[in-house]
Amino acid sequence: MTPDRRYCAVVEYDGTDFLGFQVQATGRTVQGELERSIEHVSQRTIRVDAAGRTDAGVHALGQVVAFNTGWKHGLTDLHRALNATLPGDIVVRSLVEAHSDFHPRFGAISRTYRYKILNQQWPSAVHRNYMHHVREDLDIAAMQQASQFLVGSHDFSSFGKPPQGNNAVRAITQAEWFFQDDNRLTFSITANAFLYRMVRRIVGTLVRVGVGIMDLEDVKSILEARDLSQSAPPVPACGLYLLKVIYPEGSLA
Amino acid sequence: MTPDRRYCAVVEYDGTDFLGFQVQATGRTVQGELERSIEHVSQRTIRVDAAGRTDAGVHALGQVVAFNTGWKHGLTDLHRALNATLPGDIVVRSLVEAHSDFHPRFGAISRTYRYKILNQQWPSAVHRNYMHHVREDLDIAAMQQASQFLVGSHDFSSFGKPPQGNNAVRAITQAEWFFQDDNRLTFSITANAFLYRMVRRIVGTLVRVGVGIMDLEDVKSILEARDLSQSAPPVPACGLYLLKVIYPEGSLA
Repeated sequence: MTPDRRYCAVVEYDGTDFLGFQVQATGRTVQGELERSIEHVSQRTIRVDAAGRTDAGVHALGQVVAFNTGWKHGLTDLHRALNATLPGDIVVRSLVEAHSDFHPRFGAISRTYRYKILNQQWPSAVHRNYMHHVREDLDIAAMQQASQFLVGSHDFSSFGKPPQGNNAVRAITQAEWFFQDDNRLTFSITANAFLYRMVRRIVGTLVRVGVGIMDLEDVKSILEARDLSQSAPPVPACGLYLLKVIYPEGSLA
Repeated sequence: MTPDRRYCAVVEYDGTDFLGFQVQATGRTVQGELERSIEHVSQRTIRVDAAGRTDAGVHALGQVVAFNTGWKHGLTDLHRALNATLPGDIVVRSLVEAHSDFHPRFGAISRTYRYKILNQQWPSAVHRNYMHHVREDLDIAAMQQASQFLVGSHDFSSFGKPPQGNNAVRAITQAEWFFQDDNRLTFSITANAFLYRMVRRIVGTLVRVGVGIMDLEDVKSILEARDLSQSAPPVPACGLYLLKVIYPEGSLA
């Protein structure tokens, strides 16, 4: 039997038809489909670890996963075999061999997410599962200013729940809005790690600033309150994309 | 009973889950959903005419439809009521009153389509229903040159079938490729009218030029042959968008 090696893959998926990344008792998950495909091509029972457990409807352009398996052919052949057996809404974008102790979640030093907003009168049919529709006029300058305020190391208890026994201090290194088009806005945010639904709660709060219901002072008060009930509810999952995950040089292979 | 008036709507739809525009004996169609929604809000039996009968999987950002109905409230109310009752994959983008004899198909003087290609090694999960994936390197200059050659009035029998009793002469007024991004290519084409599957056969042929299987001389021979079997098979429906339809000034209202 071919000895097991550890592999690291960058994975894109369309979150629309998944209950989320993580395997659940019933229902279609990204992890479930990845494990089924890897088990099918390698004839082993395997387990996939991921950098982040995205929610139902959340997309990924650069989710990072790792798994151990035995494979006697080349890396390119494994890559092709995986994409040939995966459903169309999951694609392995790159595949490399990794250190045996590489873990995509615990080893990561930063994650970048994108959140896409379609800002026009009517929702879009074509983009309905890929952008969040906001009808109201948005004050981008105010949203930009509030985003800048959130950059840095803070206790983000008002924007998400930490895992049990963990604190809520996270370091946001970059947070900004840019126009893709007249009516398409993208929010880009990078942090060492995020709390549960933190990006969607931050965007929800920033949209409130954009429509004029809140201002910078409100955002300051919310952050200081360390109280989850103070921030806006999370915006819909469909606008969120896990863009990329960064690891320290040399940690992967 | 409120007297019937004629209305003209610009409609966006995601073609993925439709058997096409036109009502069929069974299955979900854009026309069927539009008629159901208009009948529901206006309590009349109506019939929707459209500028073009798009195939299964083809999208529209600017399909133009017209229908007669009675409605005693304002135009904005009708617009809202339609979007409130339509499924998420159809959106009425604008709605106006039209001349009683306005016909979106026979009155149109030009149609513009877009065809989107994702040119990279692996297909995309997120864009799989919205762009056609081409793995091979494309010679854009050669594709551009061949597109230019097709501009003008020609007999396009090699690229599509005319309706019965009609000739195959069509006037292409604009045909060009542009980059949306490093690996995203869009083809834009405008003509007075198109033959059945003409855009997808033209793009199929131009992609063959792009990968080097055909050259400009081949495209010239194909056009001259007036033989449908000479052109490349149509590229997949998912990359095609009906972008806009133009009418003579004053013909609408």
